[in-house]
Amino acid sequence: LTGVMASQSAQAANWLMLQGTEKADQAPRAKLWGFAQIDYQQTDDTLHPNGSKAAFNQMQPQLTTASGFNVKRARIGVRGANFPLDKNVNYFLMTELGNNGITTGENGSQGQLTDASITLNHFDGARVRVGLFKTPGSEESFKGIPVFNYVNFTNGTDRLLIERKIDGTVDANNIATGIRTDAAFAVRDTGIQVFDTFKQGDWEHSYAIMYGNGNGLALSDNDKNKDLYLYASTEKVFGESQGPRRKSMKFYAWSQDGKRTYDGTEYNRDRAGLGMTYYDGKYRVAAEYFTADGMIFGGPKSAVAGNPLTVFTDQKATAYQLDLGYRIKPNIELNARYDVLDSATETDMQSGTNGDKHRIFTTTTLGAQYFFNKKTSVRLNYEIRDIDAPDAPDAAPVHNVLDSLDNRVSAQLMMVF
Amino acid sequence: LTGVMASQSAQAANWLMLQGTEKADQAPRAKLWGFAQIDYQQTDDTLHPNGSKAAFNQMQPQLTTASGFNVKRARIGVRGANFPLDKNVNYFLMTELGNNGITTGENGSQGQLTDASITLNHFDGARVRVGLFKTPGSEESFKGIPVFNYVNFTNGTDRLLIERKIDGTVDANNIATGIRTDAAFAVRDTGIQVFDTFKQGDWEHSYAIMYGNGNGLALSDNDKNKDLYLYASTEKVFGESQGPRRKSMKFYAWSQDGKRTYDGTEYNRDRAGLGMTYYDGKYRVAAEYFTADGMIFGGPKSAVAGNPLTVFTDQKATAYQLDLGYRIKPNIELNARYDVLDSATETDMQSGTNGDKHRIFTTTTLGAQYFFNKKTSVRLNYEIRDIDAPDAPDAAPVHNVLDSLDNRVSAQLMMVF
Amino acid sequence: LTGVMASQSAQAANWLMLQGTEKADQAPRAKLWGFAQIDYQQTDDTLHPNGSKAAFNQMQPQLTTASGFNVKRARIGVRGANFPLDKNVNYFLMTELGNNGITTGENGSQGQLTDASITLNHFDGARVRVGLFKTPGSEESFKGIPVFNYVNFTNGTDRLLIERKIDGTVDANNIATGIRTDAAFAVRDTGIQVFDTFKQGDWEHSYAIMYGNGNGLALSDNDKNKDLYLYASTEKVFGESQGPRRKSMKFYAWSQDGKRTYDGTEYNRDRAGLGMTYYDGKYRVAAEYFTADGMIFGGPKSAVAGNPLTVFTDQKATAYQLDLGYRIKPNIELNARYDVLDSATETDMQSGTNGDKHRIFTTTTLGAQYFFNKKTSVRLNYEIRDIDAPDAPDAAPVHNVLDSLDNRVSAQLMMVF
Repeated sequence: LTGVMASQSAQAANWLMLQGTEKADQAPRAKLWGFAQIDYQQTDDTLHPNGSKAAFNQMQPQLTTASGFNVKRARIGVRGANFPLDKNVNYFLMTELGNNGITTGENGSQGQLTDASITLNHFDGARVRVGLFKTPGSEESFKGIPVFNYVNFTNGTDRLLIERKIDGTVDANNIATGIRTDAAFAVRDTGIQVFDTFKQGDWEHSYAIMYGNGNGLALSDNDKNKDLYLYASTEKVFGESQGPRRKSMKFYAWSQDGKRTYDGTEYNRDRAGLGMTYYDGKYRVAAEYFTADGMIFGGPKSAVAGNPLTVFTDQKATAYQLDLGYRIKPNIELNARYDVLDSATETDMQSGTNGDKHRIFTTTTLGAQYFFNKKTSVRLNYEIRDIDAPDAPDAAPVHNVLDSLDNRVSAQLMMVF
Repeated sequence: LTGVMASQSAQAANWLMLQGTEKADQAPRAKLWGFAQIDYQQTDDTLHPNGSKAAFNQMQPQLTTASGFNVKRARIGVRGANFPLDKNVNYFLMTELGNNGITTGENGSQGQLTDASITLNHFDGARVRVGLFKTPGSEESFKGIPVFNYVNFTNGTDRLLIERKIDGTVDANNIATGIRTDAAFAVRDTGIQVFDTFKQGDWEHSYAIMYGNGNGLALSDNDKNKDLYLYASTEKVFGESQGPRRKSMKFYAWSQDGKRTYDGTEYNRDRAGLGMTYYDGKYRVAAEYFTADGMIFGGPKSAVAGNPLTVFTDQKATAYQLDLGYRIKPNIELNARYDVLDSATETDMQSGTNGDKHRIFTTTTLGAQYFFNKKTSVRLNYEIRDIDAPDAPDAAPVHNVLDSLDNRVSAQLMMVF
Repeated sequence: LTGVMASQSAQAANWLMLQGTEKADQAPRAKLWGFAQIDYQQTDDTLHPNGSKAAFNQMQPQLTTASGFNVKRARIGVRGANFPLDKNVNYFLMTELGNNGITTGENGSQGQLTDASITLNHFDGARVRVGLFKTPGSEESFKGIPVFNYVNFTNGTDRLLIERKIDGTVDANNIATGIRTDAAFAVRDTGIQVFDTFKQGDWEHSYAIMYGNGNGLALSDNDKNKDLYLYASTEKVFGESQGPRRKSMKFYAWSQDGKRTYDGTEYNRDRAGLGMTYYDGKYRVAAEYFTADGMIFGGPKSAVAGNPLTVFTDQKATAYQLDLGYRIKPNIELNARYDVLDSATETDMQSGTNGDKHRIFTTTTLGAQYFFNKKTSVRLNYEIRDIDAPDAPDAAPVHNVLDSLDNRVSAQLMMVF
């Protein structure tokens, strides 16, 4: 590679380099930082045909109301370097204090550690990061939450990537029914990653290889199998742009292969995808596609709020999204996102019966964001939501259940410190 | 209003303005702060007539010993502004790490988020605060704990305002019996507040209107009903006095109206009160009165430590206190407080029987405080305690139970950082 | 005492003085600090003779895998003084966010408070520390974890000092079987300590007397009995050496006397020991010996992972270790440690039967440490492990169980900030 340079701004929107690789002059001994997101959400609270609360019309994570306020995220972290001793070592610690999948589940609680990593930047072309941190993958989940442009995740990211930690029993149809025993994985794992970024003219080529427990946040493993994560990206940076919303065009691909232990048995869990992002200061485009093979989330049993959760132990799914942004003024962005999740596409014993697992989730999200400044913003979203069961018989009760899905209004005030 | 000025010191003892409205020159990007309170408490451990431990003679919150040490509060927080970007946005995050009602209950744990708010100070006369924060109300609970002058709360505040989150079943006498499912509310709610303070000569007139979940700390709501909080105060400031113990005379009134869901049914929970404070550097006076209507706390069942807790779903109560302080030296204050809680005053089916709910709690607290400096202090309290069941028959067993109530000695070392 | 000086460096390796006694010019208002330790551990996963996972071959604290990564410790703390108000008051707060005995057990969770103390340094020769902090005792547990030279504790410290909080039932053989109800004690207690250090030439003489709940981390007490802790040391400092790894020779002795409540009954728990340390920059020697009387930990029942834990309510044990270090280069240290725990040495009804409790744990640990700088290091350990049941009949099944114990490989990356 000619003209390669490994040095990289800590504030770049290259998520691989954003944490743990601060330049010596940008890395104090210990910098306190974090952010808070406060949501208001509302649906029409259409009931499940059986008269109970429909899970998909209730607010996450308690699923006990169709409207309300929530401190969705409140994170406090510390980051820095061995400054002035050694500019090659960085660390990053963060804890979640909000109310979401990370702080709930049976053993979950506020104060959950989400990140604790040490990065050794001594080796040219092969930085080493050790500990608990985000696994390299889909842009929607890999990017920093403070620059996420919507209130809620797409269906694909929510159900296939933001992994819930569930255990219970498995029935004869390979449907696992259980409860959330611990914090959500939140696309993080404990392990070791080798990675780096190489500059070539305006382009930045990055790679990452990670090897981890595959067992969620701040737990030792629950089996000897480890997960393997691969990631590659190339990004053309426009001009001298910097910061988490820098102007660039990026292409990336990734995969994750691992196993999960459920009721004492190990099942495959594989994911892979590719995507691109574009932002020139006025227009923003993001598109991605990914597939899931093996374990996938099946949702609350019968879509009733409070019931056991289901997991399909050996299924397939695909998801894609197109996300558009347009800055009508420097501090106002209009957004539209279209996302589809085609879940449980594999034919099995229940296919074509009333118990057919196949669902197509389609959501169109219309949004607007106002930026008070770089650190504080408010966003409004309206989600037009649809779920279809294409292979279930016309007379199957599931169609009535899915008809009770409401559209959703949400507002969020966010601040980074 | 002539001569109105909305600008306000962040360090004022106007609790409405204390958090989230720091002036630009007082608000760094992120200021770490907090405090710790370490208690020692002791009673004679008089037993319940049935031979078990009497709940009211044990230490909060575990109720497992009549004497011992406790890290009652250990709070770490971060506060600041979008400095230097925007002086109009403030934030305030805090977590509780001590051992008290906030960190106990079934889902409670240390690291509980107590505050996470963002304040937008852009609009003259109508600041907007969003998130989780103290609800405007009674001075005893609204004031900052670091300037609280006693070790323990009055009976009224403890049983009517510092709300426990309890769920279980309701019997035919409208007595709900259950357990603490989550952290105590700690007079906080998640929602939105519009508020401001207006200066007029030496006087400051303040108002606040808040709309929130009414469901405790860092939870989404559990019903669609929201709580409404109203608050107004007027305060004459003496001279140039500043800081959380500034010299002033204040009058205030407040109300809270909401509903609570218990075993799937919604019940009213209304509170309202008024009061005044006076402090001139040598003498301190505080008096307040408030009423409760709807749900009120009924205490541990039969006053036995460890038993289920009871809630009266439709009752009334009134509480008042008179609190006096006298600085015999600049760093020594003598204190006396007299507080009365008249609980469950409404006649119901059980009135006049052995199960009569009416209780009158009377406590006289004698205290002394020594201030090492503005940030570190020690206080000693002796509480002369009495509970009466005025409407129960003379032969009712409850009289024997209440006779086992002991006086209580407590000491506390506190430090703010 | 001639030439006595009480002032002391906050950075000294005198653990008694390390926290809460910072000099005025070393103590800011609030200094954020902490550390992270990320482990990888592995055994051969030899199974228990009954085919299940053998507890001693699995990773702490979940005991669900024989190999894996773990964020063993992630601590964030705040320390400082009432600076500039009063140089005589210090405080120290710390929370544990990693995955270990402190953050697990039924009521345990991440965000557990480990330290919350206020120190009053006003009185010559008798500093006073109040709150939750490490109890003065064995060097291995009393020293700061950031300068601990191995990945895992010795058997004696692990089983006799790092106290688990267990409750359940007690059988006729005085074997208590139960579960971990709360966070491990982590050699900490809530109470009050009087202590100081006196300089006499090159020597520093220290003492500490502590009185505490004896009930673990951030809990009020569970009985009225309190624990008494005594500690004395004398240390010759070599030259002007400072810091947590300062060059010196130290001798110390300590004792702890208390009671624990198990299933409503109180049992004695006494510990006492003595030891020495030596470090001259090239060679390091540490030796200690201690005894246990009363309650001692009996390990997972039948050594099966996941089973109930056992406690012996009235037994005796002794433990000792010899720990050697040699710096082959300034940033590389080779280590060897030999430790023996002679557990349950008292003859009881089960002695000589298949249920004989007597066990001798012997571990030889070979290690190497590389110091990237003063704050970041990596260490590798290989533990040659043996457990013997010397008094059980030759045909007792326990011998087969103990033969399944594997040696253990571990690696740790650590960083202090």
